[in-house]
Amino acid sequence: MPDLLVLNGPNLNLLGLRQPEIYGRDTLADVESLCRATATGFGVDFRQTNHEGEMIDWIHAARGVNPGIVINPGGWSHTSIALLDALNAYEGAVVEVHVSNIHKRESFRHHSYVSARAEAVIAGCGVQGYALALLHLAARLKA
Amino acid sequence: MPDLLVLNGPNLNLLGLRQPEIYGRDTLADVESLCRATATGFGVDFRQTNHEGEMIDWIHAARGVNPGIVINPGGWSHTSIALLDALNAYEGAVVEVHVSNIHKRESFRHHSYVSARAEAVIAGCGVQGYALALLHLAARLKA
Amino acid sequence: MPDLLVLNGPNLNLLGLRQPEIYGRDTLADVESLCRATATGFGVDFRQTNHEGEMIDWIHAARGVNPGIVINPGGWSHTSIALLDALNAYEGAVVEVHVSNIHKRESFRHHSYVSARAEAVIAGCGVQGYALALLHLAARLKA
Amino acid sequence: MPDLLVLNGPNLNLLGLRQPEIYGRDTLADVESLCRATATGFGVDFRQTNHEGEMIDWIHAARGVNPGIVINPGGWSHTSIALLDALNAYEGAVVEVHVSNIHKRESFRHHSYVSARAEAVIAGCGVQGYALALLHLAARLKA
Amino acid sequence: MPDLLVLNGPNLNLLGLRQPEIYGRDTLADVESLCRATATGFGVDFRQTNHEGEMIDWIHAARGVNPGIVINPGGWSHTSIALLDALNAYEGAVVEVHVSNIHKRESFRHHSYVSARAEAVIAGCGVQGYALALLHLAARLKA
Amino acid sequence: MPDLLVLNGPNLNLLGLRQPEIYGRDTLADVESLCRATATGFGVDFRQTNHEGEMIDWIHAARGVNPGIVINPGGWSHTSIALLDALNAYEGAVVEVHVSNIHKRESFRHHSYVSARAEAVIAGCGVQGYALALLHLAARLKA
Amino acid sequence: MPDLLVLNGPNLNLLGLRQPEIYGRDTLADVESLCRATATGFGVDFRQTNHEGEMIDWIHAARGVNPGIVINPGGWSHTSIALLDALNAYEGAVVEVHVSNIHKRESFRHHSYVSARAEAVIAGCGVQGYALALLHLAARLKA
Amino acid sequence: MPDLLVLNGPNLNLLGLRQPEIYGRDTLADVESLCRATATGFGVDFRQTNHEGEMIDWIHAARGVNPGIVINPGGWSHTSIALLDALNAYEGAVVEVHVSNIHKRESFRHHSYVSARAEAVIAGCGVQGYALALLHLAARLKA
Amino acid sequence: MPDLLVLNGPNLNLLGLRQPEIYGRDTLADVESLCRATATGFGVDFRQTNHEGEMIDWIHAARGVNPGIVINPGGWSHTSIALLDALNAYEGAVVEVHVSNIHKRESFRHHSYVSARAEAVIAGCGVQGYALALLHLAARLKA
Amino acid sequence: MPDLLVLNGPNLNLLGLRQPEIYGRDTLADVESLCRATATGFGVDFRQTNHEGEMIDWIHAARGVNPGIVINPGGWSHTSIALLDALNAYEGAVVEVHVSNIHKRESFRHHSYVSARAEAVIAGCGVQGYALALLHLAARLKA
Amino acid sequence: MPDLLVLNGPNLNLLGLRQPEIYGRDTLADVESLCRATATGFGVDFRQTNHEGEMIDWIHAARGVNPGIVINPGGWSHTSIALLDALNAYEGAVVEVHVSNIHKRESFRHHSYVSARAEAVIAGCGVQGYALALLHLAARLKA
Amino acid sequence: MPDLLVLNGPNLNLLGLRQPEIYGRDTLADVESLCRATATGFGVDFRQTNHEGEMIDWIHAARGVNPGIVINPGGWSHTSIALLDALNAYEGAVVEVHVSNIHKRESFRHHSYVSARAEAVIAGCGVQGYALALLHLAARLKA
Repeated sequence: MPDLLVLNGPNLNLLGLRQPEIYGRDTLADVESLCRATATGFGVDFRQTNHEGEMIDWIHAARGVNPGIVINPGGWSHTSIALLDALNAYEGAVVEVHVSNIHKRESFRHHSYVSARAEAVIAGCGVQGYALALLHLAARLKA
Repeated sequence: MPDLLVLNGPNLNLLGLRQPEIYGRDTLADVESLCRATATGFGVDFRQTNHEGEMIDWIHAARGVNPGIVINPGGWSHTSIALLDALNAYEGAVVEVHVSNIHKRESFRHHSYVSARAEAVIAGCGVQGYALALLHLAARLKA
Repeated sequence: MPDLLVLNGPNLNLLGLRQPEIYGRDTLADVESLCRATATGFGVDFRQTNHEGEMIDWIHAARGVNPGIVINPGGWSHTSIALLDALNAYEGAVVEVHVSNIHKRESFRHHSYVSARAEAVIAGCGVQGYALALLHLAARLKA
Repeated sequence: MPDLLVLNGPNLNLLGLRQPEIYGRDTLADVESLCRATATGFGVDFRQTNHEGEMIDWIHAARGVNPGIVINPGGWSHTSIALLDALNAYEGAVVEVHVSNIHKRESFRHHSYVSARAEAVIAGCGVQGYALALLHLAARLKA
Repeated sequence: MPDLLVLNGPNLNLLGLRQPEIYGRDTLADVESLCRATATGFGVDFRQTNHEGEMIDWIHAARGVNPGIVINPGGWSHTSIALLDALNAYEGAVVEVHVSNIHKRESFRHHSYVSARAEAVIAGCGVQGYALALLHLAARLKA
Repeated sequence: MPDLLVLNGPNLNLLGLRQPEIYGRDTLADVESLCRATATGFGVDFRQTNHEGEMIDWIHAARGVNPGIVINPGGWSHTSIALLDALNAYEGAVVEVHVSNIHKRESFRHHSYVSARAEAVIAGCGVQGYALALLHLAARLKA
Repeated sequence: MPDLLVLNGPNLNLLGLRQPEIYGRDTLADVESLCRATATGFGVDFRQTNHEGEMIDWIHAARGVNPGIVINPGGWSHTSIALLDALNAYEGAVVEVHVSNIHKRESFRHHSYVSARAEAVIAGCGVQGYALALLHLAARLKA
Repeated sequence: MPDLLVLNGPNLNLLGLRQPEIYGRDTLADVESLCRATATGFGVDFRQTNHEGEMIDWIHAARGVNPGIVINPGGWSHTSIALLDALNAYEGAVVEVHVSNIHKRESFRHHSYVSARAEAVIAGCGVQGYALALLHLAARLKA
Repeated sequence: MPDLLVLNGPNLNLLGLRQPEIYGRDTLADVESLCRATATGFGVDFRQTNHEGEMIDWIHAARGVNPGIVINPGGWSHTSIALLDALNAYEGAVVEVHVSNIHKRESFRHHSYVSARAEAVIAGCGVQGYALALLHLAARLKA
Repeated sequence: MPDLLVLNGPNLNLLGLRQPEIYGRDTLADVESLCRATATGFGVDFRQTNHEGEMIDWIHAARGVNPGIVINPGGWSHTSIALLDALNAYEGAVVEVHVSNIHKRESFRHHSYVSARAEAVIAGCGVQGYALALLHLAARLKA
Repeated sequence: MPDLLVLNGPNLNLLGLRQPEIYGRDTLADVESLCRATATGFGVDFRQTNHEGEMIDWIHAARGVNPGIVINPGGWSHTSIALLDALNAYEGAVVEVHVSNIHKRESFRHHSYVSARAEAVIAGCGVQGYALALLHLAARLKA
Repeated sequence: MPDLLVLNGPNLNLLGLRQPEIYGRDTLADVESLCRATATGFGVDFRQTNHEGEMIDWIHAARGVNPGIVINPGGWSHTSIALLDALNAYEGAVVEVHVSNIHKRESFRHHSYVSARAEAVIAGCGVQGYALALLHLAARLKA
């Protein structure tokens, strides 16, 4: 039973604590539990980092190991070509998740480099977005 | 058991028939079945039109009747402020769905007026996106 | 006594019902009454449609029949070159009305194709804007 | 009976004399008469200046004194943030008037800083625009 | 002998009647006759509509039926992604025609979404452009 | 029987030899033959140059001599204001031809300075475009 | 003991009176007192004007007289090249002050022509910004 | 012998004193002498102001009185539509002068509203530009 | 006595060593001493890092601990939305400092994401800017 | 007595013949005579070419030979960086002349690469502009 | 014999493994060998990191130690001003290398902040680009 | 032993003579010698022209004859689509060279049309760039 990789970018360690009017009150631990409960047929490798280099290292390590990645790139979505390149070097399926609907916020959040690589993008479903992403990833991998 | 409204915009009547390399091979009838199977606890009112005016009329009629809308606005996503205004006049929850990942396609598909109104946006999950949207809509309405 | 044509675009059938903090609480029926009361010396042919094609047909039919048009193009103001062309094909006087001050709202509402054709533009006067438009149209036609 | 303030910006002292194909043949004195005849229930304090500083001083002086302002900012509409700030410091209602339809002219006339502050904007009605503005201002103040 | 489809968009019902200094004095009936006279070896199915949805329906119906389409999209050329998508769903050859040279007119007429799909574009040849388009379409289909 | 001038800009000497997937396999000699066969009632003066100055000289020489020009400006279409000015100095009719549909290619090929001067523009009809251009030019000159 | 010049642009005469949620409740007289208390080792010449020409005259008069200027250009910051040129003609040190953080407000307030000339810029410190500016100016002049 | 009006905008009172590496070492008095010496056949009315309103008043006063204006608008060139409108209201010939070559300086100096009205523009000739402008104005008026 | 946090971004470890013509000759140790001497009534926690992730961690740790932050984000000012989000997750007061006047440098330094969050911005005061920022922060916290 | 070089770019051989409403009725021969009559103290080497390469060669040949160049670059002004580079390789003084006021024409004529190199620019003085340019060039060279 | 520093940014640890159609099949170890073989007369200090902060630290450490740097900044080229600043703080020679021709790829790869600092830029030579860069660096340092 | 073609565009005949602070002091003859010394295993056909048409002719003649081209397009890099098209019609390998680092100069030099066609781009290596280009071209052709 291979692991799906669930990657969380900068500031997501504060999920549920910061700006709950935008991001809700569920914590990242809640999200991890939700992911484990949802990803039937797969294990879940769940991580968070505020260091871009660590995120890139994790994606590199997933090559040939993890069949799919769910990623919430946080603020790096809009600025990190290095992250895009790391995902371009990954052969598996990628689903991008945003807790909030980034298209209703500041204009600099409307464009995501990761979206140019991801198979699918889910935004604004709150933490449930992770579960939907895993459902889709599992369905895609089983297909 | 109130109905959730599932609205499909222009050219979606050809789903499964046109450009399957982009949109896949499931037909709109398949999508309707999928929606009915997914929306547990709700009925589904499933529609498609190539006429902007008809779409607007349907959204108007949903006011006070349907607690939520899943909408795939097709090409109108990027051009119709009239459609945005109709949704602005609707008081319920709205989830936007795109079969393909619009962010990987021509740049004129990257911006959606509807996204400025929708609670959530799901793109690139193929026809499964409708099911995910209904799951989210149901969860949101029950919350 | 020729008729002045008062044309209302998409979503204006919900005037007074939707977003009253923007559009006020007068209904389209109230507007029609106001128009009839104001257009002394002229009849009033008052219409609303959510279908662009129907609006274009009405404008075509006004050629040689109605000496002036008051039009609130709603969301089409900002997107419809077809509507602009229909008005370009009309020989009479045109006054554009917006219930809200579109220049205080989202930037995509600041430009109107219709304004490039209309003799005059009145925005932000609420439903009284229709009355002012008819006053101006009548004065212009009598001059 | 409080005064409504009618303010005219640069070059409007030449109204009726300059470029009549754009601005018509009525003089500013004619406009003043029209305003006095229209503003039933209010006095009219009618002014014109080519000095931005003087215009700002007049707006400051209106604070707490005049319940409403009709302003034709002329060329300053498109360039003066200082004028916008003066109006922002004013608590009453503001209606912006342009004799010509600025949206049919050079593109640098399409944007007005004053429109971001004014309750309403009337353009292209010729000098009658002042009368319509006062009608609207009076109606708004009485409401 | 299959039919070539000749589709005309909004306001073209007024061809020859509106703005003859731009569009000339030939009517749409004249254009239809010209098309029938030109399309040797093919029948002609000639249509006009002011309703975008009807145009989309017609294009859908042409799938597998008509080997080629000549389309004058009028004002929709510049604004309708829904129309582009309908043509993308069509497998035959498409030639775009504009009666006037759109590149000499307002800048918003310089870009056509349809041109990104059409095999060929003919602009500024007046109504003869339809004949040239049919000549080309016939030649292309015979090749 | 006056000559129509058919002018070909840079790299068209390689027509049929370079990038046939874009430009087809007919050579410039084939095009010349096609032109001579098409231009009934007129002679044809057919030329090609890779030197902008020579092209300008030829256009100057056509003043008062050739009643019409068909021009394929090649890469200069998008960059040469000097060529536009030469055509502006010419009193006859001008038809612009592009073998490929420039609107489907790189964005820097979408704008042509020559289109601002030409009566008509034909793009994407392959080498047949020259024939269509001559048909239109002849018809225009006879009218 | 030379005077430092403290210059205030348009609408700052209303400081403390207008929009206190943005500008606070201290008046310009309070600011003057604060400046005099802060500028140890220097006199203070404190002025305000709503007339651009007067501001320019004051800057001209400072040449060779005042060793430094603290300026709050108000709305002219964003629009007046004439003011920039006046400061360019001044040989002393210049510190620009804004009471509010202009970078958190409308985008047209983000760019200041004066910032291209000033040695330092202080924004968002409320009226204390004047004191900080004088501290810096004094330190710079003593260095 | 009518007067030619020579108008100087903001900061030009410091000509020869400020930034001589850009503007040279001749003073405005030198320029006035040069103008008087050059304008054979005409008197010269030579003025400078830092107040936009005064400049506008002077241009208004020239209507019907002065057959031509030489204007160096200084920093207002790039920002004042009010000044453009004043010149638009003037019926005589206008020549615009800039002491420096504004096209070699900051990009915000490259566009001048006045150039859209002036018959001719002379930039970078130093103070001799005034003499050249008067030579041209005189020649134009005599022609 | 709570600590104020003084955070320094990339390359500021070289302050006083690199490009002294831009940044001066004071070292970061000098800045730390200056901060400690200035922040009367508060302790100072002074840090520098070249690692974005570490900066984000420090800001997170300040939540509920440090009442205010002075931050010089260096090059991240213009590129890091992740840093902005970290500051958005912080509830205390933030003052942004730049040693040089970033508005006089390359255009890509003119915009700072941090400025959209900071209460105040101080640029171009050299290392004294830190002292001014602490003075303001202390005053703001005491108020 | 060294020669001043007067260089004319593309289409100027038709001066006086083409578009006289823009360029007037004086021919290039008239301009040559005017130049010779004006350049007292200098010879005149007067040339025109439609070939960019020839223009570049002429400028190269002027190095160390001609102390100054008057150039009317025609359409190349706006497009030729190669021409700019040739002038950058020339050590003498350069004055740019345009017969028409390019700032009143199409926007693509508003920017000239040559203006970034020329000492002075004279536009809109008709053919007299050449004489003014030579006057200025002579004065500059004598100074 | 001082060391030349060869720095590799994010994802280059996967060189030869990821997207070989873009980056080729040589690994980073191959590149290191190539560099050592090429840099005659110098040692080579060869490094790679996915952590921006580590890259900055390395550049800082090179100050006064390594006479030259060859850097392949990977995706940071286009986004990292912090990296540019680190290089600005370095006194030696810098050559920028890209394995692929970044100008043939997505438009967001066309601009590199590092190019504004580097003495030279080599792109598209595959891994040989490192050797060419070292050849150039050695030649430059010996000169 | 086939020839490699080394092509030099406008103004490069002055290499070493013009602006040595940008382009160095080596002449084009020096470059030719360097190229012949470097291209071991190949002959060198070395040319320069200031005529775009001649450059295009040379590239055409290289089809099927020369296996590779080194080109320094000079100012045409940024403006000539005709040159790009000529290179598109050439089947061999192309390396683009710029003596200076074009990315450190005016922004209009940052984009090169030729870079969209060239396999590799080398800029800022001075005349050594030609040698590096030939080394790369030879290696590529041998591979």
